[in-house]
Amino acid sequence: MSKKHDSVLPHALPIPVFNKLFGKRVVLASASPRRKEILNTYGLNPEIVPSTFEENLSKDDFPNIYEYPVSTATEKAVEVYERLVQEQPDNAPDLVIAADTIVLTRPTPPTSDVAHSLLPHTYPEVLEKPGTKEDNYRMLLDLNGQQCEVVTGVSIVYPILTAPGFQIKSLDERSIVQFSDNPKHLLEAYVDSGEGIDRAGGFAVQGLGGLLIAKIDGDFWNVVGFPAASFFKFLDLLIEEEEEFLDI
Amino acid sequence: MSKKHDSVLPHALPIPVFNKLFGKRVVLASASPRRKEILNTYGLNPEIVPSTFEENLSKDDFPNIYEYPVSTATEKAVEVYERLVQEQPDNAPDLVIAADTIVLTRPTPPTSDVAHSLLPHTYPEVLEKPGTKEDNYRMLLDLNGQQCEVVTGVSIVYPILTAPGFQIKSLDERSIVQFSDNPKHLLEAYVDSGEGIDRAGGFAVQGLGGLLIAKIDGDFWNVVGFPAASFFKFLDLLIEEEEEFLDI
Repeated sequence: MSKKHDSVLPHALPIPVFNKLFGKRVVLASASPRRKEILNTYGLNPEIVPSTFEENLSKDDFPNIYEYPVSTATEKAVEVYERLVQEQPDNAPDLVIAADTIVLTRPTPPTSDVAHSLLPHTYPEVLEKPGTKEDNYRMLLDLNGQQCEVVTGVSIVYPILTAPGFQIKSLDERSIVQFSDNPKHLLEAYVDSGEGIDRAGGFAVQGLGGLLIAKIDGDFWNVVGFPAASFFKFLDLLIEEEEEFLDI
Repeated sequence: MSKKHDSVLPHALPIPVFNKLFGKRVVLASASPRRKEILNTYGLNPEIVPSTFEENLSKDDFPNIYEYPVSTATEKAVEVYERLVQEQPDNAPDLVIAADTIVLTRPTPPTSDVAHSLLPHTYPEVLEKPGTKEDNYRMLLDLNGQQCEVVTGVSIVYPILTAPGFQIKSLDERSIVQFSDNPKHLLEAYVDSGEGIDRAGGFAVQGLGGLLIAKIDGDFWNVVGFPAASFFKFLDLLIEEEEEFLDI
């Protein structure tokens, strides 16, 4: 047998979740170096098998928009799980983890009840990745001095004995990001740096984009891309409550 | 003249504060690798000259406890500024930065007004660095499921033409840290890791300690040890408002 990839790093705390994951095959269905780094910080070192799922779900199919990143995460995790089982039936993963992060607008509530009753109800909108610097600047002008909400959906897939042979569990974590009232020259300089291109919402909170942010109410790492503290608490709960979890 | 240390890194945004700092002698009066890293993220790369100030101010001298870390930061910055001016009068620093981070308890307010009026008013207390694992465990048991407040005082010293030849400016930034209701085995495992020893409050939010935290309301980097976003906004303001700032 080939040498096993070590999923649990020496500095991981000896708590139930890591004791249980020791020697198991853990896979992260994401190419994001940030997600891997966050998990590494806490001592989890999954194999990286990026999903080939196209992330093409239609937002309109989700009356509850928080289910949208969770569904994308689920599709990614299931695709990777099924592919790995097919490739190596004797070496099926014990746990596949996938995540998807979206940024939502937070419409400012009207300042009077009268206005409220006359206006159509406003729903949060998904802020996509800006394709151009012009897009990025417009997006940041809209966010400036305002809040947005960052939601990461996380799904895991693990084997069970009954059909279809695997179980899916999910969580979502939500964080509020408050932008400062930034001068336009700062927004322009940020956009020019190119960091915001290809980032949901047009900014990277862990990079130069941090200069634009007054505060976060929530888990900083969730805004970066993975809600690690909630995730490990969630695994601990599954160990307590689900007999088959990591025991097959 | 010897090669000058470059205080502004190539990836710094071309905004007033960095344009002005370019070619200037900037000194960080702190040995903390974390503070240096945070500043580096935003493109500031100060010389490191740790202060020899003993950090022995008496908390009891501060009716307003938020002035305590600010005063410690001021003492550090002034000590380094004066020492460097004395050592090399022709190469005085243009800017010395110092910071001090403290962790405060957040007493839960009583649940009834009657109780409130009968009880002595409770003030926040400074949580010191635990000296032993037993201390660390007791501290985390107290914090578990509760909030604490992390305050970083930042002071800068820069030359002016009038006596005493330098100016001091300060800010403080406050963030609320909410601990999860962690099981005792997690607290024990964390304390055993040794990470919390010698950290104010007994935890490191950027390390394994993140597992204990439900959320932060504020600037994550402030909790790590330096409120960079506020700091650079503060320097931008000084450039606008103080004629002598970085111009002597």
